Amino acid sequence: MTQFDLKDHSHRRYNPLTGEWIQVSPHRSKRPWQGQVEKTGTQTLVAFDPTCYLCPGNVRANGEVNPAYTSTYAFTNDFAALVDDVPTGEFRDSELLIAKSEAGVCRVICFSPRHDLTVAEMDTAGIRSVVDLWIEEYTTLSKNKNIEYIQIFENKGAVMGCSNPHPHGQIWAQQSIPVEPAKKQQHQFEYFKRKGTTILSDYWNLELKYKERIVFENDHFAVVVPFWAIWPFETMIIPKRAMARITDMTEAERDTFADAYRRMAARYDNLFEVSFPYSAGIHQAPSDGEAHAEWHWHMVFYPPLLRSATVKKFMVGYEMLANPQRDITPEFSADRLRSLSDIHFKNRVV
Amino acid sequence: MTQFDLKDHSHRRYNPLTGEWIQVSPHRSKRPWQGQVEKTGTQTLVAFDPTCYLCPGNVRANGEVNPAYTSTYAFTNDFAALVDDVPTGEFRDSELLIAKSEAGVCRVICFSPRHDLTVAEMDTAGIRSVVDLWIEEYTTLSKNKNIEYIQIFENKGAVMGCSNPHPHGQIWAQQSIPVEPAKKQQHQFEYFKRKGTTILSDYWNLELKYKERIVFENDHFAVVVPFWAIWPFETMIIPKRAMARITDMTEAERDTFADAYRRMAARYDNLFEVSFPYSAGIHQAPSDGEAHAEWHWHMVFYPPLLRSATVKKFMVGYEMLANPQRDITPEFSADRLRSLSDIHFKNRVV
Ligand SMILES: O=P(O)(O)O[C@H]1O[C@H](CO)[C@@H](O)[C@H](O)[C@H]1O
Ligand SMILES: O=P(O)(O)O[C@H]1O[C@H](CO)[C@@H](O)[C@H](O)[C@H]1O
Repeated sequence: MTQFDLKDHSHRRYNPLTGEWIQVSPHRSKRPWQGQVEKTGTQTLVAFDPTCYLCPGNVRANGEVNPAYTSTYAFTNDFAALVDDVPTGEFRDSELLIAKSEAGVCRVICFSPRHDLTVAEMDTAGIRSVVDLWIEEYTTLSKNKNIEYIQIFENKGAVMGCSNPHPHGQIWAQQSIPVEPAKKQQHQFEYFKRKGTTILSDYWNLELKYKERIVFENDHFAVVVPFWAIWPFETMIIPKRAMARITDMTEAERDTFADAYRRMAARYDNLFEVSFPYSAGIHQAPSDGEAHAEWHWHMVFYPPLLRSATVKKFMVGYEMLANPQRDITPEFSADRLRSLSDIHFKNRVV
Repeated sequence: MTQFDLKDHSHRRYNPLTGEWIQVSPHRSKRPWQGQVEKTGTQTLVAFDPTCYLCPGNVRANGEVNPAYTSTYAFTNDFAALVDDVPTGEFRDSELLIAKSEAGVCRVICFSPRHDLTVAEMDTAGIRSVVDLWIEEYTTLSKNKNIEYIQIFENKGAVMGCSNPHPHGQIWAQQSIPVEPAKKQQHQFEYFKRKGTTILSDYWNLELKYKERIVFENDHFAVVVPFWAIWPFETMIIPKRAMARITDMTEAERDTFADAYRRMAARYDNLFEVSFPYSAGIHQAPSDGEAHAEWHWHMVFYPPLLRSATVKKFMVGYEMLANPQRDITPEFSADRLRSLSDIHFKNRVV
């Protein structure tokens, strides 16, 4: 009888950070594509766009004028989903209808004055400024007594609902710990209590043993396609030492984190030689004043593209109703991403 | 001080079926849209398409010929994500790398021989045939000793990754209970043990008390925008009496279920006068031979459109990393859907 093989046979994988499973169907990669194709990254952009509400010196929807910033710039979202002045209250009928007021802050983080760049094309020094700004914002927001959790993220590309190509990210900070970080909180806590180490420290040692899912590493950070990755080319940047929050980084680590972020973004663009769309973000300990030794912060990239610049993976039907499903294996994706250059294809000297 | 009001203020709502929360930001509905717009339902279709692999009499990718079916037709997916002949096995290293073989069956369900119809335009008798086929398939699949859970679903529209407009759905049946039904299993079980009633029986009584989220009802089914809805126009068809599985329906209930499905699909098309995309499906008890008195089966519709035929809600960045977020309230959406006709706009006599 044939031996069970993760490369060839339908299986489920477990995510120890969330306690959830994913369906992997490697035998299905040969399926022809007949569905919708995306228009991706076909725009040519100018360095300064007078109609862009994020470019330096321009006027935003609420009439405010952006400063003539030369590096990064942060402001409170003009259409924030979370606001700080919500009246406190609760609605409850039995145990089935439950709602609670939620206060918070939404910030927009401009990564560069240049309208036509993305992290993939920025230099490491520029990205280091973004990292510094995230840390500054985190520090300020965590002093707000209404804020228990701070979600830093970036939507890149129109296909990811990003409404403006100007390189930017967002920070949504709020009173409650959202669903995804709450799962990781619980599983990391239980593991740490039992083992005295973080999940991601032990996980990184396993990745070093198998060497199948590592994309690259530098002095302080490892980039892997997680064993339990959901998106076809999902990756995770893991600090090699356990740290609860990005504010715990040394100066040297801030530099190498910027290096890892830049190189991963460049590899993504190089994969299909297109501006590669993704949602990315940082999961870290709650900003509740506790130490949270169980937390090992990390950055995840969730890119939707599947087999080319125009064919994406749809998380629909089965995925929405049952659980995530993927065709190509994480090991295959890691292989592809590992083989790529860290130099952006546009800057390549031929 | 202003009173906390679900209509105006940022809040979180609890989903008692899954134990998860969602962020509601009603104050944000006024936000202008600058992002990607979709091409939706602009195609004009023919009743029979010689190149369609689902039309009667046509040849499929694997060389098989579809019969000249006149009502519904089911076959095993030619590119199935779950297959029955997987070698049984497990991969495990410590408690962090865990994978298990997963056997299953993927079926494709053609709803009608007509290439140019959808459930929204089919008649109730035609939809009743689909319901009968689902029940037949469920009954057959549940006899397979490898099958513990059967997920019936429909992806409608190119924007939902549906690769063929021919009206069809799918059934993915497998050895394990997937993540979403497993959450509902757990929460319904705990509630039933404590209360002796199903969550959805008690929930429907609450909806009758408030009358704010009911879209419509017939003799045996209620259609509501759930209090905890994630998608802008998400709805749920709830049987008025507790039943674990669709196989428990009486003849009369099969008819009224088909009626509810048709009327909901027609209202969706009428909302923006366009073929309305969604993923829909049925959550029901596992097919494990147990009674599961705690389960109250229901059908959910997850449509992505937000404010017009071309602007969809993106579940990206914050939603992927933190938790789902919505702007318009479920009560607002229910109001809109309630005000619409059950007669499809194309069949309206002016
Ligand atoms: O209908 P298809 O082409 O088999 O596939 C579609 O539905 C599947 C089940 O929801 C998804 O896994 C695919 O991503 C989607 O494109
Ligand atoms: O960048 P925007 O336009 O504020 O909004 C985008 O990101 C938000 C946070 O991930 C999502 O809630 C929106 O659906 C998306 O369009």
